[in-house]
Amino acid sequence: MWRLFFGFCLAAAAGTGGAFPGNGSAPNIIILLMDDMGWGDLGVFGEPTRETPNLDQMAAEGMLFPNFYAANPLCSPSRAALLTGRLPIRNGFYTTNAHARNAYTPQEIVGGISASEILLPELLQKGGYSSKIIGKWHLGHRAQFHPLKHGFDEWFGAPNCHFGPYNNKDRPNIPIYNNSEMVGRYYEEFQIDLKTGESNLTQIYLQEAIEFIRRQTAKKHNFFLYWAVDATHAPVYASSAFLGTSQRGLYGDAVREIDDSIGKILQELHIQDIANNTFVFFTSDNGAALISAPNQGGSNGPFLCGKETTFEGGMREPAIAWWPGHIAAGQISHQLGTVMDLFTTSLTLAGLQPPTDRQLDGIDLSPVLLQNKIISRPVFYYRGNELMAVRLGLYKAHYWTWTNSWEELQQGINFCPGQNVTGVTTHDQQNYTIQPLLFHLGRDPGERYPIRVSHQEYEAAMIKITNVVQNHKAFLVPGEPQLNVCDQAVMNWSPPGCEKLSKCLKIPRSHPWKCKWPH
Amino acid sequence: MWRLFFGFCLAAAAGTGGAFPGNGSAPNIIILLMDDMGWGDLGVFGEPTRETPNLDQMAAEGMLFPNFYAANPLCSPSRAALLTGRLPIRNGFYTTNAHARNAYTPQEIVGGISASEILLPELLQKGGYSSKIIGKWHLGHRAQFHPLKHGFDEWFGAPNCHFGPYNNKDRPNIPIYNNSEMVGRYYEEFQIDLKTGESNLTQIYLQEAIEFIRRQTAKKHNFFLYWAVDATHAPVYASSAFLGTSQRGLYGDAVREIDDSIGKILQELHIQDIANNTFVFFTSDNGAALISAPNQGGSNGPFLCGKETTFEGGMREPAIAWWPGHIAAGQISHQLGTVMDLFTTSLTLAGLQPPTDRQLDGIDLSPVLLQNKIISRPVFYYRGNELMAVRLGLYKAHYWTWTNSWEELQQGINFCPGQNVTGVTTHDQQNYTIQPLLFHLGRDPGERYPIRVSHQEYEAAMIKITNVVQNHKAFLVPGEPQLNVCDQAVMNWSPPGCEKLSKCLKIPRSHPWKCKWPH
Repeated sequence: MWRLFFGFCLAAAAGTGGAFPGNGSAPNIIILLMDDMGWGDLGVFGEPTRETPNLDQMAAEGMLFPNFYAANPLCSPSRAALLTGRLPIRNGFYTTNAHARNAYTPQEIVGGISASEILLPELLQKGGYSSKIIGKWHLGHRAQFHPLKHGFDEWFGAPNCHFGPYNNKDRPNIPIYNNSEMVGRYYEEFQIDLKTGESNLTQIYLQEAIEFIRRQTAKKHNFFLYWAVDATHAPVYASSAFLGTSQRGLYGDAVREIDDSIGKILQELHIQDIANNTFVFFTSDNGAALISAPNQGGSNGPFLCGKETTFEGGMREPAIAWWPGHIAAGQISHQLGTVMDLFTTSLTLAGLQPPTDRQLDGIDLSPVLLQNKIISRPVFYYRGNELMAVRLGLYKAHYWTWTNSWEELQQGINFCPGQNVTGVTTHDQQNYTIQPLLFHLGRDPGERYPIRVSHQEYEAAMIKITNVVQNHKAFLVPGEPQLNVCDQAVMNWSPPGCEKLSKCLKIPRSHPWKCKWPH
Repeated sequence: MWRLFFGFCLAAAAGTGGAFPGNGSAPNIIILLMDDMGWGDLGVFGEPTRETPNLDQMAAEGMLFPNFYAANPLCSPSRAALLTGRLPIRNGFYTTNAHARNAYTPQEIVGGISASEILLPELLQKGGYSSKIIGKWHLGHRAQFHPLKHGFDEWFGAPNCHFGPYNNKDRPNIPIYNNSEMVGRYYEEFQIDLKTGESNLTQIYLQEAIEFIRRQTAKKHNFFLYWAVDATHAPVYASSAFLGTSQRGLYGDAVREIDDSIGKILQELHIQDIANNTFVFFTSDNGAALISAPNQGGSNGPFLCGKETTFEGGMREPAIAWWPGHIAAGQISHQLGTVMDLFTTSLTLAGLQPPTDRQLDGIDLSPVLLQNKIISRPVFYYRGNELMAVRLGLYKAHYWTWTNSWEELQQGINFCPGQNVTGVTTHDQQNYTIQPLLFHLGRDPGERYPIRVSHQEYEAAMIKITNVVQNHKAFLVPGEPQLNVCDQAVMNWSPPGCEKLSKCLKIPRSHPWKCKWPH
């Protein structure tokens, strides 16, 4: 059933707008992807201070998804999966250096998005869409991996996380690009004051979005905007107008500024009279980073643990779909969705065909969005090269559990602060593949009460899940792992355009090593 | 500031409707009090399955309170506080048999609501209101404590929890009363099938409410309805039409039936054309009983622990105010509120004076409800005879911490399953009175990150809180503790009316003992 999309065979659209079944011309597409924002960070998902009036209003005008998932508990793999419609294990955004490790793209990483992967903007481009990514890319920072090499027409933002400041000798500061050339670096031309948390970046990203929308509308171009802001990722920041305005501290200030910006983006769609022709989807790349809480991390609401883990807090995401006149207002869908569905769904809405030469994990959610249907499908929770857990219906089976190592825990690294469920939040890698830990997420969304193995319910649920897992594994062709090799020479020393700014740094000698992924 | 109500001096109303400032005639008053329902059990408060469409709609049409509190983490004291406007330490609903113990009114309790306490329905009666309690009383089951002796005109429901079935030899089954006489007993005339969870009680309580509303409307009588249903208290139950309909299991079935019933009650107000003249308030008596989860207990959302504790999960409650035409739709108030405010607020709305001969803890929320004002006031968290914690603004200081004893924990009794915050969820009674544990509930609603004592923020907050606590203690006159003495002879052997039903049981000899309250 979850391979429903294989049956779809839509006529590829030509020119500036394709046709999707039954709804006239193809819409513009905006994906608002948050960074480390948790399920519980929105008022509409129960955040007690309720400081997201614009997102709550967006939900009231659209469809809320309480069962929507990241593709991975970590940023890079989840983002690569969104843009390819494929699990990281397929698209190569994982490591085999050790078992079940979270790997991503720091600037010493050699790899990035493989040339053999087909990204959403590449396909949309063929359908006549203009596309722009604003904010964090995170699919590889070396030139061959850049967004403009993978289908985006425009880019304003950074290839890596805004960590720093670095001294530009041992590590360069992360560049910010305008299209294919850098225009400055974090902590240099683009300030983030780590003491006060002040930065104008969200305002810049907002203006970039508004300007892009206006420009495409004036040209009567269909557009795809991927708005990947990073203010809620540590080090968290907000502009001066928002600093100190939240009851939640700096993290809340960042959320308020993003919420305000999203309100302005939706307002702009109304001003440009394209709201009824623009599909907007809001979600996040992984669960809130509890390790950065309470000042720099968000909330996963009632769910267990957070970012880096395959418990619900690590991968269940806030999600809202909005498309006035097409998606009826005030709906709640219990469809199991994933960020990879945005790939397939966007193609369908654009009247385009998904690739047929490879396995996709995203499904087409348009019957859910437009007719409130429910499509049966599983959710797979991977950590690196290991299938840690599977959700089917309301059941979730853990095949492996691991929070982080005892060694890290002793150093104060804890992905489940204040939470400790015996046999579930484990600090050794626990192998439950013979007899998975089973939870009913309806009765027990917090994954605190494993269903007894001797219970009839256990057997009935596990028969179905086992079948799904066997099927998944039988057809799984893991991609070439991209996150195995690190090298100081590949860091952002001399990005394209550095020479115009006199900001090129000396590239050290290449010394590749096997990247170490501790958790 | 939180003693603002002392300044109010409204003219007492005569006849069937008084006047309250600026809003014409006095409204009917309906308090919908849930039993062990948690903050996180409503869709509008982020329950993931979102199965409370009627309550969510009620919130959309009224005012949502994310910062509303029970008066105690346990049922009887919280309910006594609601109806007296006074903390249990003042109205006597506590024990001095041991330090900081949760005590309530099982059927061996000798005590109950003191004759010297003035209850809300007594005062409303003087203002011409007809009043009815439907459901659980819990303020003492001996005849002198019954609702009709304390101001209510009508009662349909039970004096105690619906525990059982008992064998009527060692313990009698709990009676259900229609006004001053019993009409049957739980598990006898009023069935609860413990195997299936089936019971018609919520439907009966709904019909009682509808009938009362119709009758009072026909008579053009102002009314006070206290709808205290108990389906979400273990043993949880639902009627056959709702059994198996929730994604949350039996507990969810009970919630869905109550949500549906509340929808019907509000609809009836519209049908009777009295919606604009009826103030309705929805809340719960204490946090979800996590010890009964996942099948028989609810959710406290992002908050720590549950019922029986003075962490947020034990006392933060879902709360919604509704009064079309008077309370503007779609509002969220961050007012710190408590169930005791319903006493004072109801009196104000009815144009009546609160008693001036005693200390009240409830404040008048009408400026909050009608003008969206914020009134500064603290929240006190008591456990028995001990002030465990205080909230002021966004800060909460714990003077004592205790979850439950090691002894109980070893027996599997755990009020914080899966949660363990070092130094916070303690299994010894920890005395922090010299240096309270301080949390910022805006940044850290889950009480996981105590603010460092050395931090300037700690000192600034504690100066204010210390002042509030000293003031509170200086004026505190503890009431005579009512929950110290137990006796088998006082159980529900021969309730009034039993003779008509031939359901009188033999009363054993009196053997009073000091009640044991283990946690």
